[in-house]
Order: sequence, then C-alpha cells, then structure tokens
Amino acid sequence: MPRWLLPENIADALPSEARAIEELRRRLLDLYRSYGYELVMPPMLEHIESLLIGSGRDLGLRTFQLVDQLSGRTLGLRADMTPQVARIDAHLLNRTGVARLCYAGSVLHARAAGLFATREPLQVGAEIYGHAGMEADVEVIELMLASLAAAGVERVRLDLCHVGIVPALLAMDPSIEEAEVYAGLQKKDRPGLEEVLVGVEPKARDALLALVDLYGAARGPASVIARARAVLPAVSPITAALEALERLVASPMWARFPQVELSVDLADLRGYRYHTGVTFAAYVDAIPNAVGRGGRYDDIGQAFGRARPATGFSLELRELASLAEPEQPGRAICAPWSDDPALARRVAELRAAGEIVVRALPGHEHEQQEYACDRELAADGQDWNLRPI
Amino acid sequence: MPRWLLPENIADALPSEARAIEELRRRLLDLYRSYGYELVMPPMLEHIESLLIGSGRDLGLRTFQLVDQLSGRTLGLRADMTPQVARIDAHLLNRTGVARLCYAGSVLHARAAGLFATREPLQVGAEIYGHAGMEADVEVIELMLASLAAAGVERVRLDLCHVGIVPALLAMDPSIEEAEVYAGLQKKDRPGLEEVLVGVEPKARDALLALVDLYGAARGPASVIARARAVLPAVSPITAALEALERLVASPMWARFPQVELSVDLADLRGYRYHTGVTFAAYVDAIPNAVGRGGRYDDIGQAFGRARPATGFSLELRELASLAEPEQPGRAICAPWSDDPALARRVAELRAAGEIVVRALPGHEHEQQEYACDRELAADGQDWNLRPI
Repeated sequence: MPRWLLPENIADALPSEARAIEELRRRLLDLYRSYGYELVMPPMLEHIESLLIGSGRDLGLRTFQLVDQLSGRTLGLRADMTPQVARIDAHLLNRTGVARLCYAGSVLHARAAGLFATREPLQVGAEIYGHAGMEADVEVIELMLASLAAAGVERVRLDLCHVGIVPALLAMDPSIEEAEVYAGLQKKDRPGLEEVLVGVEPKARDALLALVDLYGAARGPASVIARARAVLPAVSPITAALEALERLVASPMWARFPQVELSVDLADLRGYRYHTGVTFAAYVDAIPNAVGRGGRYDDIGQAFGRARPATGFSLELRELASLAEPEQPGRAICAPWSDDPALARRVAELRAAGEIVVRALPGHEHEQQEYACDRELAADGQDWNLRPI
Repeated sequence: MPRWLLPENIADALPSEARAIEELRRRLLDLYRSYGYELVMPPMLEHIESLLIGSGRDLGLRTFQLVDQLSGRTLGLRADMTPQVARIDAHLLNRTGVARLCYAGSVLHARAAGLFATREPLQVGAEIYGHAGMEADVEVIELMLASLAAAGVERVRLDLCHVGIVPALLAMDPSIEEAEVYAGLQKKDRPGLEEVLVGVEPKARDALLALVDLYGAARGPASVIARARAVLPAVSPITAALEALERLVASPMWARFPQVELSVDLADLRGYRYHTGVTFAAYVDAIPNAVGRGGRYDDIGQAFGRARPATGFSLELRELASLAEPEQPGRAICAPWSDDPALARRVAELRAAGEIVVRALPGHEHEQQEYACDRELAADGQDWNLRPI
C-alpha cells in the first residue's frame, strides 16, 4: 500500500480548497462575533464519558477511542463539539446569565456519515445557554441562515422538527422497540415500521406511522402542524410541541430570509439524540444531506453539574466552502533575490500593505508560482520600482 | 472522577485565550501569504507509516495510535505536521519548481514534551520545497523571526546547529551506542557521555565530548564555528557543515533583526530526527523550551516517491499567543429584543460595519456580557439611534 494513500474518507485540503475554507472560517467567526458570540476552543480529545454525555448510541459508535498512556483511561476523539461547549458553559464559565459561545474545528468520525462523507468534518457552530424562551431558538436559526448567506448559498430549505413528540408516543406502550422505531422514522420506512409496530397499542402505532407522512409546508391550512393536530393524540407533551413549532413559524424573523423555504418534518430525527425540543436542519440543492443542523438541548450540562437551557447549531465548513464561488489566488509581485537593503525595505513595505511578494530563489526565476506574478520589482538606479509583467 | 475533568496536559481555550490564539493565527497566516506561501490542511489522522516517515523513535513514542474500524489498519494522530506537508509536496502538488507551503492546526502528543507542556500543541509553520541553496534557509528563518515579531516578542535568541556533524563522528566507530550519545548530547551531560564513550575510538570520543561545550556566540574570533574547526576532525561532512553554518551567519538578513541574538549550539539535537542539515531554534526569556524550531530535511519526500530539498519551521501558537499583549474584548452595542423591522435593519447595518451588537433576550436585559456594552440602540420615533450607556 503506497505511503501517500490516506485512510478511507480522509483527505488533505490542497491550496485552493484550503484557501476557500480559511476564508469562510474567518467570515463565519467574524459574523458570530458581530452577534456577541465568544469563541472557545475545546480539546481534540477528552475522557470518553465526558464526550458522550446525554447522547445516543450513534455518537458512541462514531467516536474513535484510544487508551491514555498516562492514566490508562479511555479517551475519545471528539465526534461532535456541542457536548464540549456545554461542558465549558456548565463548568468553566459558570455565568448566571446568558452565554453565547461559538467554535470551529475538526471533529473525527470512526464511521463516516455516508459513503462519500468525510471522516474529518470541520465543524463550526454557535450556541446560546441560559434562555429557555423561543427567542434563543430564533436567534440561532437566524445566525445559521446568515452563515449560509455568508457562504454564498442562495436557496435554502429549512426543516423544523420537535423531538418531544416521539418519546410521548413511545411512552404510551413500553413494549415498543425504541431503537427500531427511530431507525424506521429516520428512513421514512413505513413497511419496516409497520412490522416493528405489530401488536403495539393502536393509538401509539397509528400516530407513529402517521409521522412518516407529516412533512411539508410549515404554513397554511394544510400545514404539517394543522395535520399533526388532527392525527396525533392530544396529550400534553405533543400539544406543547406543536404549539412551540407554531410560535416559531410565526416569528417575524423569517421575513428577513425571503429565499428560505420553511417546512416541517416531524420524523427528521437524525442527530446525536441529545436534543430535547425544537430542532432544525438546512438543506441546499446540490447536497443530499443537511448542510446545517441544530436545536434545543436543555439541561445537557446537568451531567457537568449545572442544568441550563441551551440551543445552537453547527455547519460543516468543508462542504459549505465547496459551495462558495472559488476565490482567485491573489496576484503577486515577483522580486529578485538580492542583498540590497533598499529592496528588502521595499518588499517589507509592500507586504505590510497587503501585497503578496514572492522572492525568486536563485535558479528558479522563471518558474510558475501558485500566486501568478503580474508585477515585478525592478532596480531603477538606487530605487526599486514596481512594473507590470 | 468528575466528568468535567480533562485528561492530563489537555486544556480548553476559554474566550480570552481563544481570542488571542485566533487573532495571532490570522496574523501569521496572513504574513505567510504575503511571502507567497500557500495554505494546506492535512488530516488529523493518517496511516501510522506515513506519519512516521524518516523520523526517529521519539516521534513514534509521542504518536497516539488507534485501529481503523474500516480497514483494520493502525492509524496515528499527527504529532507533527511537517512530514504531512512533505507528503503533500511530494505526491499531490508534484510541482517541478519551488513550492512554498504553510499550515496551522492541532497536533496531539501521547506523551507531553515536558511536565507543563500541552499534549495538544497548535502547530503553525511554513516550508520551502525544491531549493537546496542557503537562500531557502535564510527565507524560512526570516519568516520565523517575522512571526515572533508579529506575536509581539521583542528579544529572541536564535541557536543554529547542523545535524550532519554527529553522524560523521558516529561513523568513525561503529561500536558507539547512537541513541545514548544523542540523549547525552541533548542533555549536555558530559559525565554520562564519558561513560557511554568508554573504549570508543579516541578521536571520535574527544570530538563528541567537545560538542557539549560547542555553544555560544556565532560571530567573532572566539565563535563556536572557529572553535569547532580547531577541535573537530577535518573530515568532509564536518567541514561542509561548518562552512554551511558560516555562510548562513554571514547572511545580510540578520541586519534586519537587530534584536535577535545569534548563537550556535552544535549539540542542540532535539526534534524528530528527520533533519539533514542546518537546524535552528528560537528562545525567548519567559519560556525554557524553544518557541520555534526548524531546519533542513532534504529528501524526506523520497518515501512518498519524490526526493526534494526542503526546509521550514514551526511554532506553537498557544504558547506564543500567551506572550502577546492581551487584546481587550470588543466594545459592544446592546439592542432590545423587538420585532420592529427597522431595528432589525439597523442591527444588521451595524454588524456589517464591524460592530458587535448583542440583542438582550427577554428577562436578561440587565446581565453583564463578556462583550461589555458601551452603547445601546434606543427607539426615537420611527428610528433607532445609538446612545452611550
């Protein structure tokens, strides 16, 4: 096996891709800062128990594990940064009020999320802690949509869901195979679900089967929420969930994003199972999987000693950067290799002014650079002047 | 063990530290771009054989290993990015001419480099491939010194070394215990070395012992190079190494860094053992270990199918950022939570203009933020105006 071959679903970012990723990374972190979100940098690895706090089996299967030589304990490579940021909010910052945090970094997946999915997503995201009201959900959704706009994405479909509905139905019959129901709903696999639900309490069964079709327009008389009211049992967690979705759909924030198609999908249960309320996922034309995801995960910090309302989102930077218009590599100035201090001063001035100045190493004067030179520094008596090539 | 406790020598970067790191990261990558270096992003993990190409035992011991579920093969978490960048140059870019590459990212160490050293250094660096001449060494050293200046470091001691000298002495007597000699030289442990060298060919022994004291001023009649000429055997690899150091010391580049104290230390052999020629290390007052390191590693790409001259350096961003003056968190504008579209427009304008605008979530109007508000948006008829708080 050649040594330059990388593991499956692992890749380098070469200069043009790396430039696009770096450019978008800065744009997004600046955007989050302009909303008052503070950057945090949690570590790549932690004790496995901390990383998997409150999450489902899926995150555990996706997490690379290794043994720490120093302590003998099992460490995990982060597969998702949200639980880390919740730990920071709960334990380290210890604010009494609202905390707004953002982050950007690699996460690693032992199993790729799909055949062509990378096992090293670059996760970027933002979270609000300390506010239980819908305004926090509105703000993070707005910020996610602003992120997509900053990446040059024109048309977005945003699916809303509420993860409180399925548990309320599962609670109606303890004999239900929970994991299989979740798997069936995620795949919208009605025949599979029918099989799993044989013998189950009929109201719960019918409602779970109905969820498969409860997706579509968020507004109007035939909206998913209206249909759900008609077919789902009117128990209090379900009516509360539908009311929460309705309030969110009514937010005036959506008017600021006219290109966003707002829909509801009550069976969109992908994610790492730590969510507790409204969740959302953004889809764009070119990409089958969601480009951004988020939602409520109240009280995840309890395991770290401090329960707090929480909501947030994350995006995959590598994929998102591939959607943006490719930025051209900058135009450079070529300078000869010379010991003249006047040239060194001129080069330093131009670089400080934002120019790219490439000094030709002796013997390499006529090579093509990645940064194509359109100007050169040429000696003119004592001075060095710019001239076009 | 509480769940918020991180593994030994692993830490979060909280907002003020993260801000300093991010700020310096951007400044350095912009600096490298201004010199014509292109950014690449190699992956966090690779097949272990690729990661350890050409390196010594030390890098292997420091590399976390795990098994890939997909292939059953052993993967390593990168402990150093230089071999990855060499792989990219050799295999992927496949340029015939000079390639200038730079990078920034986490590396992970199974064993910390010291008692208080982090096991997740943030490595940032730059490399030149394709030029064997001293000019490439001069350029990367200049860029490392410019990086330290960009981080606000005033006084630097730069130690030069040449890793060709010790192997030339070891070759004089095949009975020498190589690893123990390296360890003794690194620690400048003369009594230990004397013990290791009992019975060794006297010229080799005396020269290896002499290396322990061959450090100090790079220039002048009592320079280390002059002393080395007097006490080391005049075999061709050694005279060539001393000549290379002498040419480098004579470079006019040093005049541009008057605050740098240039010295030579012929026993400074730390690093990952892939170096092949001139090496260098930068020291600053507050920190016992080198803040930056680099040097020649010609032909490391051979293992990837393409031998090329190469030289470069790397710095640890976390440590370097701690030396910089702490940047103040930005002053923010507070805005009420309101559905008024005029307010939303005003907030968007201010954010686009680079301001931080924090919207107060209902019930949290009087909380202290990390971004302290010195102005607020207040309704004035139809308009929203800024006023000081």
